[in-house]
Amino acid sequence: MKIDERLDAATAQVLRGAMGGDAPAQLAQALHYAVTPGGARIRPTILLSVALACGDDRPRLSDAAAVALELIHCASLVHDDLPCFDDADQRRGKATVHRAFSEPLAVLTGDSLIVLAFDVLAAAAGKDADRALQMIRVLSRRTGMPDGICAGQGWESESQVNLSAYHGAKTGALFIAATQMGALAAGQDAEPWEELGARIGEAFQVADDLRDALYDAETLGKPAGQDAAHGRPNAVTSLGVQGAIRRLKDILGGAIASIPSCPGEAMLAEMVRRYAERMTPVAPVLQRADVRR
Amino acid sequence: MKIDERLDAATAQVLRGAMGGDAPAQLAQALHYAVTPGGARIRPTILLSVALACGDDRPRLSDAAAVALELIHCASLVHDDLPCFDDADQRRGKATVHRAFSEPLAVLTGDSLIVLAFDVLAAAAGKDADRALQMIRVLSRRTGMPDGICAGQGWESESQVNLSAYHGAKTGALFIAATQMGALAAGQDAEPWEELGARIGEAFQVADDLRDALYDAETLGKPAGQDAAHGRPNAVTSLGVQGAIRRLKDILGGAIASIPSCPGEAMLAEMVRRYAERMTPVAPVLQRADVRR
Repeated sequence: MKIDERLDAATAQVLRGAMGGDAPAQLAQALHYAVTPGGARIRPTILLSVALACGDDRPRLSDAAAVALELIHCASLVHDDLPCFDDADQRRGKATVHRAFSEPLAVLTGDSLIVLAFDVLAAAAGKDADRALQMIRVLSRRTGMPDGICAGQGWESESQVNLSAYHGAKTGALFIAATQMGALAAGQDAEPWEELGARIGEAFQVADDLRDALYDAETLGKPAGQDAAHGRPNAVTSLGVQGAIRRLKDILGGAIASIPSCPGEAMLAEMVRRYAERMTPVAPVLQRADVRR
Repeated sequence: MKIDERLDAATAQVLRGAMGGDAPAQLAQALHYAVTPGGARIRPTILLSVALACGDDRPRLSDAAAVALELIHCASLVHDDLPCFDDADQRRGKATVHRAFSEPLAVLTGDSLIVLAFDVLAAAAGKDADRALQMIRVLSRRTGMPDGICAGQGWESESQVNLSAYHGAKTGALFIAATQMGALAAGQDAEPWEELGARIGEAFQVADDLRDALYDAETLGKPAGQDAAHGRPNAVTSLGVQGAIRRLKDILGGAIASIPSCPGEAMLAEMVRRYAERMTPVAPVLQRADVRR
């Protein structure tokens, strides 16, 4: 089965469980709305790619890990879109959860998705209790405080920002969770996989900065120019467009060099190269940006 | 060590971990503020009492379970107090988290506490992986969708409410988690302990309805008369004050009868009787209520 098909099947099964029984109908629908149809699902795809590169001897565990990671990512999007944060109307080309349902249901959707993520991992453990527990610890560390995406979002309330801690937590954390949980699902040590995740996370941060600065809202499926509007640090502001693109290429070179030795090493390097192509803004956008500068 | 001291020590250790490293300062303070000084800590006290009644052969596990459960309860209070839900200014006699810090930090505090709860359980597993995984599953079921406190809160967005599902999820869920996790921490089956938790939960719902209807905000440490103000179902409205008190006593009698056979059975029955006394409104309040009716 292809990675996309595995994700679809595993996600559908998990959502059926969460929406079943005596569930309140609107919250059940909001969970489904927040998770499907997914976006690019880059994090779970990286996770499954690493698991496959390591032999993927427990697909039940790696499927669960991929779904859990995507649920956490979706939860963070729902909460980040709330009026008290980005106050966003659109996400993935449709209304945000608090606009389509309500603010209370958006808060509860995020909460329920976080809980569901840990439930999915524990439920998949079977005879591989240690792998499941290690994956739960990696996911909790990269989601909560003091190192996870909650911490990253928390930095935006500080007057003095530790930029490296901020970016590492806000963007890097879930990519590190992706590479480490992929390795753990396949019975490998997590530690050697941290650097690959961290570097892919850095690359996505720079790519996101480029998109935020160069693309319009229609192309993004969400508001554009949000970094400038909220006074947030952005690689394009500090390095310029061409400088940011050079930085992106450097980081991705480092990511490929950091891939631990494993049966699927070459496949993973190819995956990173593919992402690099997709992340680099295409020529017409750059020409327009040059005209604007 | 007494139960209160165990809870203090275990909570302090967990908070130190979450607030350490490169944590953003305000979110770290908000976590501490939301959890300490605790309220009555009834749920973790019940959990540890059940664990003790079952032999408590792994105090590391039962301490972790008690802290995890209280973290989930605190997270639910922080999110329930948000402007889009109860819009409460006061909780436990001090400003609510979104008033003392900010709304973004209150959302993140709740999120971080949920994540931390699961982290604490996974971190405590040691050689008891199966017990830890079972506790994680009980906690996630009683927190998320479709049966947990998120579902309970979600019912408040429905026009047609399934009252039994609503009360079971909103109030009963974490008491069931308390009795079941206490038993699991001590190596016992969870299933026979569901009824005790459910009945204690029902009793607390009725007691809470009585307090909401009879007490003022100063005594409660939070706004009074909220059920009437939000049109929520309340046992005092449907049964009257004396009827609600009779119902409370019936439920607690059933709770005592449901205690599974275990070394500490008599101690647990005594604990329930003690809670019954504390939960029943005292004479002066009842007299005032009779005058008002």
